[in-house]
Amino acid sequence: MPDTPLKVAIVGLGWWATAIANGAQRSEELEIVSCYTRNEEKRAAFAKEYGCEPAESYEAILADGSIEGVLITTPNTAHAGQIEAAMAAGKHVWVEKPITNTLAEAPGVFKAWRKAGRTLAVGHCYRRAAGHRMMKRMIDDGTLGRPLWAEAAFTNPAGQNFTTDRWRYFKSECPGGPLMQMGIHHCDTLQYLLGKPMRVTGLHKRLATPAEIDDVSMTLYEHESGAVSNVTTCFTSPNMFTMKLHGTEAALHLEMVRENLTFAERTNEETTLLIEKKGETGWMQVELPAMRDMVQDELEEFARCARSGDAPETGPAEAVHALAMVEGSVRSAEEGRPLEMAALLDGIDL
Amino acid sequence: MPDTPLKVAIVGLGWWATAIANGAQRSEELEIVSCYTRNEEKRAAFAKEYGCEPAESYEAILADGSIEGVLITTPNTAHAGQIEAAMAAGKHVWVEKPITNTLAEAPGVFKAWRKAGRTLAVGHCYRRAAGHRMMKRMIDDGTLGRPLWAEAAFTNPAGQNFTTDRWRYFKSECPGGPLMQMGIHHCDTLQYLLGKPMRVTGLHKRLATPAEIDDVSMTLYEHESGAVSNVTTCFTSPNMFTMKLHGTEAALHLEMVRENLTFAERTNEETTLLIEKKGETGWMQVELPAMRDMVQDELEEFARCARSGDAPETGPAEAVHALAMVEGSVRSAEEGRPLEMAALLDGIDL
Repeated sequence: MPDTPLKVAIVGLGWWATAIANGAQRSEELEIVSCYTRNEEKRAAFAKEYGCEPAESYEAILADGSIEGVLITTPNTAHAGQIEAAMAAGKHVWVEKPITNTLAEAPGVFKAWRKAGRTLAVGHCYRRAAGHRMMKRMIDDGTLGRPLWAEAAFTNPAGQNFTTDRWRYFKSECPGGPLMQMGIHHCDTLQYLLGKPMRVTGLHKRLATPAEIDDVSMTLYEHESGAVSNVTTCFTSPNMFTMKLHGTEAALHLEMVRENLTFAERTNEETTLLIEKKGETGWMQVELPAMRDMVQDELEEFARCARSGDAPETGPAEAVHALAMVEGSVRSAEEGRPLEMAALLDGIDL
Repeated sequence: MPDTPLKVAIVGLGWWATAIANGAQRSEELEIVSCYTRNEEKRAAFAKEYGCEPAESYEAILADGSIEGVLITTPNTAHAGQIEAAMAAGKHVWVEKPITNTLAEAPGVFKAWRKAGRTLAVGHCYRRAAGHRMMKRMIDDGTLGRPLWAEAAFTNPAGQNFTTDRWRYFKSECPGGPLMQMGIHHCDTLQYLLGKPMRVTGLHKRLATPAEIDDVSMTLYEHESGAVSNVTTCFTSPNMFTMKLHGTEAALHLEMVRENLTFAERTNEETTLLIEKKGETGWMQVELPAMRDMVQDELEEFARCARSGDAPETGPAEAVHALAMVEGSVRSAEEGRPLEMAALLDGIDL
């Protein structure tokens, strides 16, 4: 644990900022000292709720020498510029996924990060959930045998009511729709479980949302390990979060209830992990170890890395791969062919 | 019910013939009077077990005027020739899926069938399972809302031990591997639930089988209704049969235990169908009506159609679509691009 909590400011105060701020409050390793969003009333309310100072502007945060890092929970299109500005000001950055809105923005972020030599951690918290950590352990200890395939889905019905005052309504602000907003978590977890993806084939459809984004996606991934995976996302069907993983010796089925993710401390207790071993019939419950919640866990790792200079588990390289799994799916669907991950990442100095 | 049971012979006496013969024995609508396989000992044992006469040859069955129909449960490569010969002999035919081994064989079968004017029913029994019938009902009565996407998987570990004395070992005899042998059932059920498929994108890998077939497949389908689906099959991971279906108003999750499919009468009681409605949290069990098992059901329909001249639910047209969903997936993977179903079916007189 650091000697004193890492002093951070949070910028972008939507519903996910609440989840992040709650996670920070559960920790003694970082302290939110400042917050900013354009709306003055909103930032005053947030400052009051979380016992921090409302800042006049993002620039004021960056100019404040007492602030060591920023937590960025703004809309995706703002990430690249805000990371670059924070790095230039010598701040450590934790940014909610995706690292940037598009792969085209990644080189600028990498350049700013390398020049600054500060910590850049990206909010791919789901791989830290107790169930996914246990799945990884069961790969590593041989319980699963050779991993062969995974099937993941992440859905919610919010897109049935999207209106033009929400940035998720627009293709330019939310390319990839539900795959970018929800499925990217599965993308990151799949690279964690099955190794880097090599090839991507995507299918995107607009079926039931009034928004201009596609609301259903299905994507096939081929991983460097040989294993294959598919990710289904939907913005217009009931809440569901599942991850199936089959190996030669066992099958695993994870399901998480995620209606109340702003209460991330509940994700562990609302997780079910089942196993079926080869030669046995029926699913058995896997007992999960007591763990910190995934949000608190990622924020504390960020604070420790900022102090130690260690690399966070999901730094820019992992985050850009996850982003390429999303953008590659969208481009693959547009072009009607599988795309190579290496080609998508060409020109990004990983 | 027909006045007297339809007199049928069964040809090809492997493990699936046992399931079919058991299904026939549970019914009063058809009677197995004769059986044939090349191995004399095997057919004598089968004849004794099921109280029928062993035939000297398939030709002898076709020449026997007292036999009204044949049940074909031979390896896939034999189907086309045996259907054509049976049709030429004026017999009704029930053939286990796939209707033929390849789409190239389909035109010959269609020609023989049209010329003979006899019943040709194909064994796509799974859509008849209580759970799938209930899913269809919940689409039709609006419970599901607009169907958006489905995710289906069908796996078993048999391919870990495939040897060269089994026809499923060889690509030429079992093109599509687990998608042809197991996943084709999901293909048929998906066209039943979501309408005809329009486009197919496949991915096939050989990961953990000693056989020459690919043992893992993932396929994306776009249906004429707009809905999308994916089918995952694996011959080298533990037994699993699942079907998820999400619509705008509800999500359904079906799981069947299929270790003992030769006891098809158990499939209904070993089925779990869960529903989650929009706005509610957590899955609720759906009560399934008491039904005949899916094998008995399909055989009785065959017997009735043979007598009445009615079209069976899965006749040659439905079966060729299901086959095209398999062969299209394989060809799509080879060509590295999505394929149009219409192009795959070109030249087949549906």
